[in-house]
Amino acid sequence: MARAVAGPEIERLVQLLARVPGLGPRSARRAALQLIKKRESLMAPLAGAMEEVLGKIETCPVCGNLDVRSPCLVCSDPTRDPTLIIVVADVSDLWALERSGAMNARYHVLGGTLSPLDGIGPDDLNIASLIGRVRAGDGGVVGEVLLALPATVDGQTTAHFVTELLRETGVKVTRLAHGVPVGGELDYLDEGTLSAAIRARTTL
Amino acid sequence: MARAVAGPEIERLVQLLARVPGLGPRSARRAALQLIKKRESLMAPLAGAMEEVLGKIETCPVCGNLDVRSPCLVCSDPTRDPTLIIVVADVSDLWALERSGAMNARYHVLGGTLSPLDGIGPDDLNIASLIGRVRAGDGGVVGEVLLALPATVDGQTTAHFVTELLRETGVKVTRLAHGVPVGGELDYLDEGTLSAAIRARTTL
Repeated sequence: MARAVAGPEIERLVQLLARVPGLGPRSARRAALQLIKKRESLMAPLAGAMEEVLGKIETCPVCGNLDVRSPCLVCSDPTRDPTLIIVVADVSDLWALERSGAMNARYHVLGGTLSPLDGIGPDDLNIASLIGRVRAGDGGVVGEVLLALPATVDGQTTAHFVTELLRETGVKVTRLAHGVPVGGELDYLDEGTLSAAIRARTTL
Repeated sequence: MARAVAGPEIERLVQLLARVPGLGPRSARRAALQLIKKRESLMAPLAGAMEEVLGKIETCPVCGNLDVRSPCLVCSDPTRDPTLIIVVADVSDLWALERSGAMNARYHVLGGTLSPLDGIGPDDLNIASLIGRVRAGDGGVVGEVLLALPATVDGQTTAHFVTELLRETGVKVTRLAHGVPVGGELDYLDEGTLSAAIRARTTL
């Protein structure tokens, strides 16, 4: 039987923090207390940063990325290769690919994957705008569309669907390689990944 | 080589979130993205809750608890036993004891433990105000002071120091029992705890 030790404002802060991914009910309580203790050095700047993002955040009308400017920082970067569009399901995938630093391309965020069970059809995703970008050339000539979609059933269904639609544009469509994750133990890998890695083996 | 995929405002939000206990650099990024996606249902209320707490939070002048009212919710609760004061090192300990719901008492937060190595002496802790509360009777007659301090060297040093100071007031001074944590395996317990649990064994 826990009773309130502080006003409802603090309880509300704890409850909202508990909904942040990575924090649970218990760590939200610890986080709230630390935020209160460091209210000048952490909570005030954090609240300010949230307010600033809240006032400015927009979905990029070109690619679907989330940013405080429109078009987003990626789309408005003139140094990026305009001939390659990397298609991702979610903004988090865009961020992850950028962290890898492997490509200096532009992106297109579908906003999910086709999922008949969840009632997500082609019209719920930014597929039409992708076809439009490829057709219009997107400020140049798009030579390749790399489908960086999840290696799940829904992700692969989406990849097939998008590939079919892109066929008429004549653009080259590619997908990410399957294989052993770098640093991964073979022992822990599923058969599908191992089979794919064997089929796609490379000569040393 | 990671490049910016969004404006510096979002990067700043990620960096501040990474300083919240329980979130690291990677989970801060995921948290930021979820906050941005749920900006209406989560980020706006969370920023609002922080602003509200920021504007109101105070250290209770009586017990040292942190609350949006002064005196705090615990000190201003007339149903609490005025004859027992539980002394804790930190507000988080107060919260933890309240979650247990074991006592309906009042508290006194020292704000730390004596630590010569860290240069924390008696004047850096709320010890004088504790003696004052006990002497003044705290709106009644304080019959017992329960020292719920950490079972560390610094915590026990602090407990001895406070006990000596309280001796002249004639109040009964108690401490938490040592023993086997509920649900704990004996195998994983240190010898000190086991010895204490044996010495304090109870008859069934």
